[in-house]
Amino acid sequence: MQKIPEPTLRRLPWYLAYLKILHNKTTIAVSSTQIANAIGIDASQVAKDLSFVEIAGKTRVGYDVAELIDVLEAFLGFNSHHKAFIFGVGSLGTALMHDSGLEKYGLELVAGFDIRPELIGSKVNGIGIYSPEDCQALRKAMNVQIGILTVPAEKAQEVADRMVESGIRAIWNFTPFRVKVPEDIVLQDTSLFAHLAVMFKRLNQDVL
Amino acid sequence: MQKIPEPTLRRLPWYLAYLKILHNKTTIAVSSTQIANAIGIDASQVAKDLSFVEIAGKTRVGYDVAELIDVLEAFLGFNSHHKAFIFGVGSLGTALMHDSGLEKYGLELVAGFDIRPELIGSKVNGIGIYSPEDCQALRKAMNVQIGILTVPAEKAQEVADRMVESGIRAIWNFTPFRVKVPEDIVLQDTSLFAHLAVMFKRLNQDVL
Repeated sequence: MQKIPEPTLRRLPWYLAYLKILHNKTTIAVSSTQIANAIGIDASQVAKDLSFVEIAGKTRVGYDVAELIDVLEAFLGFNSHHKAFIFGVGSLGTALMHDSGLEKYGLELVAGFDIRPELIGSKVNGIGIYSPEDCQALRKAMNVQIGILTVPAEKAQEVADRMVESGIRAIWNFTPFRVKVPEDIVLQDTSLFAHLAVMFKRLNQDVL
Repeated sequence: MQKIPEPTLRRLPWYLAYLKILHNKTTIAVSSTQIANAIGIDASQVAKDLSFVEIAGKTRVGYDVAELIDVLEAFLGFNSHHKAFIFGVGSLGTALMHDSGLEKYGLELVAGFDIRPELIGSKVNGIGIYSPEDCQALRKAMNVQIGILTVPAEKAQEVADRMVESGIRAIWNFTPFRVKVPEDIVLQDTSLFAHLAVMFKRLNQDVL
């Protein structure tokens, strides 16, 4: 398969969201120009981005909406089933465990880990909480590759190290700490606080 | 005040998180080289980034950790008090209303809005849920500038338009839809699903 540039990959979910809206309105076909106008992106960029997924636009008619949705969802991994562990069942960890949206996009939280004895053995939204000591065995038994990092920042590196040791291959880091991982480990940073800072500063018009 | 480039702004929270860890360990002073090594960034970049906040590193001694924490928190707006509305009290909206982390970083959720009659008048984590019709009046009364968008994607544009009409000046968009807003409105996109897609594809080594 042809490798895809990350900026393209980040735009594809925008197209998918728009296509789903069209589909709900029973629209059958869509052109790249129409997608481009709706999203506010250049039409040639849309066509180029969509060239990475294996679908052909029909001349004059455009893309078949339902087909393009299926192809994009498959391409983005949203209709696959990815199991994930969550490390740190604090306020954000608990919040994510309650968010049913993740499962719709292919991510199933199958266990949580926390060091607090009062949490171990309990459940959040039906998902069991375990001691970090059980992580490696559970990971193997459940064949989990993804770990979500929602511990306090000062524990982030230590827990990330433990995740890697136990065989986790991708870390979704929600902490504000920039963890270091071996090169073969996938690290995805989603710092809500960095986004907050950018928004606050933009409100004050202090950003270039 | 000097305007700051967004990449710098995005790195500052990393430095802050590291400084807080040092502070917990009662470290008094830190050099830009030390910060650079901990984070995995070039030392000259760290020094340059920190030149945007008003603090001087002392030669040989480095930065005063406690002082730099205070200065960064103030600079990033984390110790100010920003009120926000949340639009769409579904699973993600509810999850964010339960996340006490946002308040620590200066964002206070003061009301939620949803069209479902069974939710209106109820509370989530002590935060009242109102009808969208009450948005404009409440926004004025509470002097709220920030709106968090957590409605279904197909409602995103319509609700964003309503937010702007009611006087919201910054939209934190958690939906996968790319909403259009007037130029003077701050739009911050945080699509968890786009991040998920990137992580899934990287796991398969399909990203350039």
